[in-house]
Amino acid sequence: MKKNLLVAQSGSPSAAINATLCGVLEQGLADANIEKIYGVKNGIMGLLSERLINLTEMFSDKADLQLLCQTPSSILGSCHMKLSAWEENPFECERAVAILRKYRIGYFVYIGGSDSMDTVHKLSDYCKAHNIQDIQMIGVPKTVDNDLPETDHSPGFGSAAKYIGTTFSEIACDCSVYALPSITLVEIMGQETGWLTAASALARINGNGAPDLIYLCEKPFSIDRFLFDVREKMMEKHSIIIAVSEGLRNEEGEYLAESLQHRAEDAVGQRILASVSRFLEEILRKEIGCKVRSVELNLMQRCASHIASVVDIQEARRMGAAAVQYAVEGGSGEMVCLQRVSQEPYETEIFFVPIETVVDHVKEVPLEWIHEDGNDIMPEMMEYLLPLIQGEFPCTFCNGIPVHFHLPK
Amino acid sequence: MKKNLLVAQSGSPSAAINATLCGVLEQGLADANIEKIYGVKNGIMGLLSERLINLTEMFSDKADLQLLCQTPSSILGSCHMKLSAWEENPFECERAVAILRKYRIGYFVYIGGSDSMDTVHKLSDYCKAHNIQDIQMIGVPKTVDNDLPETDHSPGFGSAAKYIGTTFSEIACDCSVYALPSITLVEIMGQETGWLTAASALARINGNGAPDLIYLCEKPFSIDRFLFDVREKMMEKHSIIIAVSEGLRNEEGEYLAESLQHRAEDAVGQRILASVSRFLEEILRKEIGCKVRSVELNLMQRCASHIASVVDIQEARRMGAAAVQYAVEGGSGEMVCLQRVSQEPYETEIFFVPIETVVDHVKEVPLEWIHEDGNDIMPEMMEYLLPLIQGEFPCTFCNGIPVHFHLPK
Repeated sequence: MKKNLLVAQSGSPSAAINATLCGVLEQGLADANIEKIYGVKNGIMGLLSERLINLTEMFSDKADLQLLCQTPSSILGSCHMKLSAWEENPFECERAVAILRKYRIGYFVYIGGSDSMDTVHKLSDYCKAHNIQDIQMIGVPKTVDNDLPETDHSPGFGSAAKYIGTTFSEIACDCSVYALPSITLVEIMGQETGWLTAASALARINGNGAPDLIYLCEKPFSIDRFLFDVREKMMEKHSIIIAVSEGLRNEEGEYLAESLQHRAEDAVGQRILASVSRFLEEILRKEIGCKVRSVELNLMQRCASHIASVVDIQEARRMGAAAVQYAVEGGSGEMVCLQRVSQEPYETEIFFVPIETVVDHVKEVPLEWIHEDGNDIMPEMMEYLLPLIQGEFPCTFCNGIPVHFHLPK
Repeated sequence: MKKNLLVAQSGSPSAAINATLCGVLEQGLADANIEKIYGVKNGIMGLLSERLINLTEMFSDKADLQLLCQTPSSILGSCHMKLSAWEENPFECERAVAILRKYRIGYFVYIGGSDSMDTVHKLSDYCKAHNIQDIQMIGVPKTVDNDLPETDHSPGFGSAAKYIGTTFSEIACDCSVYALPSITLVEIMGQETGWLTAASALARINGNGAPDLIYLCEKPFSIDRFLFDVREKMMEKHSIIIAVSEGLRNEEGEYLAESLQHRAEDAVGQRILASVSRFLEEILRKEIGCKVRSVELNLMQRCASHIASVVDIQEARRMGAAAVQYAVEGGSGEMVCLQRVSQEPYETEIFFVPIETVVDHVKEVPLEWIHEDGNDIMPEMMEYLLPLIQGEFPCTFCNGIPVHFHLPK
């Protein structure tokens, strides 16, 4: 008997989450076991409020599937919501299952980060406990932060890494033009892990000098050591570029931005807007005394799909398709993962892990991939990163601007 | 008799200034009147300290010329220096001419912004007054800000505009994913003019909604009006994106960032780091109360040559070549300009203006190209912008990262 497929997206935007959706749609449209494909708007929140849309109709034109792969963020929207444990509050899971039943959903694919995997875990756990065997649920990882465990890496990370490497290479050209000493601090996303900050080192691959110093949040950050590093570097060259994780913490484990903010609040009795780079900028200006500026790569690093990595987009697509196939074969309560089976030529294989093994775990950068001085990465990290940024996705432009897919209003 | 050609770059970086250099080199290498091409490091400062390098030797390989066109910033470096008036301090002009003589320079091409044009003006004026007729000097405009007068636009602007339009289109996808109300402020370069901020509207060309509001620095900015605009827009849609010029001024003509800073300083007695967008962010958070974030496009908007406009790079190259040709023909003390002779198909012609007509003049956005409410642009602006961002420059990547030209150490 044919059943319907439901797909949802959640978590923070990335350049690859719609490519995963594309893979889900391609496989779903081709699979004889699937009748209709529904999407739900705004993730699990949208499911609970029954905001389903018919994607089979919407994607009757193959060109739109292609367009999805160059559209950043989630066309189905997202949400910030963690389901309650069903043992305490059964309402959410009951309602979710009732709606899935109403639309004869046999397969539910949820593309997202750690909160979304938690949702898949709770829902599938509820189904298991209640002997509901006709709804298969699979999670597909998506996070620019690359902090999901078990999988070699997550879709979205490679494209963000490519943007960061490219941008550092360009900023290095920009910052080296004056004969006067200068320091440029560049702050990169990653509250808990330094994967994206490490990707700044990719700028060096074609002979560029930047970045000169790299600080990941996995190692405690000491301002004294930092000032020493900067002074030492500036003895070698007059213009230096520094990559810092937004999630840098001091030796007490306190977020640097917060600890500095507290100090500032104590001093002036008022909250001061600040990011790590802004505060370090002020410290450098005071202690080193040269021109200092700070740059935040902000939203651009996660949504710059005009420079997406082909490897990343292809893997995202492949994982979306694999999730559907696995669900149809009876898999449930698992997450799609990538295993790197060969480094040269780069090759990955897809496998699945029980979703509970990824929930509440964060994959940090291994300490042995960080220089012992805490101010650079090791060659192992470069080797890990390089295959993930290969190939430039052939983005279609119209009128000089990339074309994106938009849901009909 | 063959003479030598000298070329220098100055002012803030852009994605097209090296393409102009490429044009200078191509023409210089091909012209039978020119023996050797020298470059000078760090603009006029480098000339005065005799930092000349032989570019004829360096660019014997044509592939390197091509590479120049995808390398952002100035490979010859830059400087912040305005020559003194020779009537008051003849030393600088005397020394410059002595060094030009020493290297048998017959033609001097200076690529840069308003300060560089001022240098060409003062040097050529000095030569005229001292009956020095064997050194021809031509200025080539370069400014992402697009604030040089006489020319329809300046090289570097089109590529920055393309980056800004693309990035707004991507940020619009990013910001629309949540069902909750949010405001995203994006701050764009332009201390004196709003050309680049206006380019944010290019994101709309393929059906994207962003930006919802656009504030250029040519019109006085009222916070009351701004809050009204935001509230009105949020009645239509829950997530809005606002483009603001860094140079916004209040009704008293004071820079907004400064005026707000003074208020904050008065309140807490200490300097607070701030940009226009950060301050507006705080005001919106307090007055509107929803999620607000601010993004600065910072250095990226002027150095993102991986997404340079073909029209921009080609014009930059053509203007560099024209400057050399004109100097050889005896032109001096003038600046290369572009005139738009046809809008559809887009076509420009090169002409020259006496350099004194561009010095100390700023080309602002015409008020009639700004909506009378001061919160958007008019269709004339869109028409002006569109041809300048056409075509995606075929950037060469290696190892997943763009390749840039670097001067040998």
